[in-house]
Amino acid sequence: MNELIDAVHWNADGLVAAIAQDVETGRVLMLAWMNREALELTLSGDQAVYYSRSRGRLWRKGEQSGHTQHLHEIRLDCDGDAIVLLVTQRGGIACHTGRQSCFYRRAEDGAWRVAEPVRRDPAAIYGTH
Amino acid sequence: MNELIDAVHWNADGLVAAIAQDVETGRVLMLAWMNREALELTLSGDQAVYYSRSRGRLWRKGEQSGHTQHLHEIRLDCDGDAIVLLVTQRGGIACHTGRQSCFYRRAEDGAWRVAEPVRRDPAAIYGTH
Repeated sequence: MNELIDAVHWNADGLVAAIAQDVETGRVLMLAWMNREALELTLSGDQAVYYSRSRGRLWRKGEQSGHTQHLHEIRLDCDGDAIVLLVTQRGGIACHTGRQSCFYRRAEDGAWRVAEPVRRDPAAIYGTH
Repeated sequence: MNELIDAVHWNADGLVAAIAQDVETGRVLMLAWMNREALELTLSGDQAVYYSRSRGRLWRKGEQSGHTQHLHEIRLDCDGDAIVLLVTQRGGIACHTGRQSCFYRRAEDGAWRVAEPVRRDPAAIYGTH
């Protein structure tokens, strides 16, 4: 475990970038951040745990939405400052807007166009918690 | 163009994270950064241009290696602080180590294990420039 953690080059805020990719479809689902504790929890469990910069605390992905990410593989890049997680996305929804991927806007004719549908109304996802 | 640029939430250093993904294989190739100028050049051309934090200047991907990235699609995430580029990776090598992807190390039995081969010796890639 320590060998895994020590190889990471944490940024000035003590974070490393973590890209979640759907293991089935290959879609890039989201880019989030991990601190040391989040990576330790992710490595020692089978679910993705991030660090929420906006909330300033650990973020167990799916803690509110139920849209957890089951871990298949973790990779580290050459610089040690970015991680890829291959995951099964529960509910098929990674984004808080209710879409599969956070990357749902595509550059087209000089504007960002929404390129994928809302799979579930966010009010229905978060409203009951 | 301005509408595209203005939707981006630049970080404190004026940068946005950019994930390059191989359009054919779906492999995540690298995570790099763009400043405003790099994104403008990327959007107005058909090749990925990044900002090198270590060199403190624009980085036309492939300028030394020849391993340019031909652009197919650009996506922006829900927060506006990360971009995905779908690219054709010239030479099939994105990493300066001569591998297809920078994410060539996999967490396995408590260590990062090299999980993909060098396709071309870096000395051969960079030695002649």
